[in-house]
Amino acid sequence: MGEFELIRHYFFPIAEAGHTSAVVLGPGDDCAIQQIEPGRDLVFSVDALVEGVHFPPHYDPEKLGWRCLAVAASDLAAMGADPVCFTLALTLPDADPDWLHGFARGLASAAKHFGLALAGGDTTRGPLTLSLQVHGTVPRGQAIRRSGARAGDYICVSGTLGGAGAALDYLGSDNPGADEQALLVRYHYPEARLDLGVALRGYASAAVDISDGLVADLGHILAASGVAASIDATRLPVSAALKRLAGEDAVNHAMNAGDDYELCITISPQAWESLPEDIRGRLTIIGEVKSGEGLAITHNGQSQALAAGGYDHFRT
Amino acid sequence: MGEFELIRHYFFPIAEAGHTSAVVLGPGDDCAIQQIEPGRDLVFSVDALVEGVHFPPHYDPEKLGWRCLAVAASDLAAMGADPVCFTLALTLPDADPDWLHGFARGLASAAKHFGLALAGGDTTRGPLTLSLQVHGTVPRGQAIRRSGARAGDYICVSGTLGGAGAALDYLGSDNPGADEQALLVRYHYPEARLDLGVALRGYASAAVDISDGLVADLGHILAASGVAASIDATRLPVSAALKRLAGEDAVNHAMNAGDDYELCITISPQAWESLPEDIRGRLTIIGEVKSGEGLAITHNGQSQALAAGGYDHFRT
Repeated sequence: MGEFELIRHYFFPIAEAGHTSAVVLGPGDDCAIQQIEPGRDLVFSVDALVEGVHFPPHYDPEKLGWRCLAVAASDLAAMGADPVCFTLALTLPDADPDWLHGFARGLASAAKHFGLALAGGDTTRGPLTLSLQVHGTVPRGQAIRRSGARAGDYICVSGTLGGAGAALDYLGSDNPGADEQALLVRYHYPEARLDLGVALRGYASAAVDISDGLVADLGHILAASGVAASIDATRLPVSAALKRLAGEDAVNHAMNAGDDYELCITISPQAWESLPEDIRGRLTIIGEVKSGEGLAITHNGQSQALAAGGYDHFRT
Repeated sequence: MGEFELIRHYFFPIAEAGHTSAVVLGPGDDCAIQQIEPGRDLVFSVDALVEGVHFPPHYDPEKLGWRCLAVAASDLAAMGADPVCFTLALTLPDADPDWLHGFARGLASAAKHFGLALAGGDTTRGPLTLSLQVHGTVPRGQAIRRSGARAGDYICVSGTLGGAGAALDYLGSDNPGADEQALLVRYHYPEARLDLGVALRGYASAAVDISDGLVADLGHILAASGVAASIDATRLPVSAALKRLAGEDAVNHAMNAGDDYELCITISPQAWESLPEDIRGRLTIIGEVKSGEGLAITHNGQSQALAAGGYDHFRT
């Protein structure tokens, strides 16, 4: 099957399944065309995923299809953007129909789940690499940036932390137990907290998604906002499965492990009080924004200052 | 230098140099934000370039910086879109400062030349692969699609054809002559015919950029429009340098070689007559759209029917 037939066969159905009227022209021309409603701005982010760096070699193609879009969509969640569409640049060593079928199935599920229509792409031969760009929109001026945190704001996270990162230990496990399974699902099928991001628009003062670990990603907010923070490690939300598996070490996973794709936000106490009850219920207050710089972590009554620096692919 | 410092050092200056008020938020947050003027639509395209497939191994980084953006921008030209901004997902094996410096210099020149601001990106470690997405805008409904060609339309191309493809023979040449140099410039520093594309809005019935060769790319217009075509090979515009170097073979380069990034358009005879003189001067009529299907090529009085099928990365 040639390149064009391959694209048509596996990817055009995803474009049709996730169709949105905002995408006036989808795959198949020199460019795609998207209409943006008056009064709204385009919000977009690109993520590259490389085999052996962002996912294990010979990773299941269906899981990869889901995961690559979830990871990209998570950036829209962190801006409070309504999802619209995405493009995919796919470089793969050969056109293996089994692989493509699985990948397309996972991608199609994710596209439907996250409300993102495939609007265009490019496929070429080469080492397995994926580059996804997601498009969303926000009412003008209402995107949640990293730079809006102010001293006195609460620091909150969604869901539970550390599970996806801890799952890395069980990726090769032949017969994982129920708890290991629960963590593996977090790794293989991350959620992008899109509805939560949208609900936080107008409330949160800053937001970031947790891809590189809480300490690293909260660090981005602190740097962009020019503020410091203190967090109470005993408050970090951790799943029962992770607690059973990791014991005392669970808190370290929650602090430093990546791949959770939960949101970390800052919000003023007043805005917190006015948040709808169900949204508050999805967040845990873990600390407070301070003036100055640096991140202080309290754990079991002991306080420790941490450098804020995430996993860095090129650090030597 | 870590990933974040690396991005900041080499790429943020490109974002600042090519700054446009349409990009409300550039690199450094979870997403970038672009404002689209009322009454205009977003036009976008993604292109992946892989070392050893789309450019030679150990290719000069400055040329690569120019070339990758020109290639991507050419898709905007083919839609008649005004250029706005782009994103870059860059996967590279190591953070070699010399390489990055050269690449950033070439990319910055191209960004300025084509009027495209760097709005966001992602850098990761891995095999050398680039994925660029370009953003432009058109007044609503005025993008030039591949599907608008009608029987009776003229078929035109811009500039001269075949030079960039013929240059592949001289890429390793230690001491190329003036003619070889002229072709090499076409390969290394392609132009994206952005101003021509914009000028053709409202006139051209269909357009495509010539990346895979005239026969292949005109074939996309014919397939999308459901029409046939005849072209007169003796009319194909070829540079004097290519004629001197390739002789009789020049026409084959013009017909089949890729990498020229000229435009191939269709236009009704009436629209052709109303085209501004200077725009007509940049185009050569090479044939005519017919009803039916297939592509007939006349050369030296002989006619030949050709299958329309481009270079296909996955054809086996």
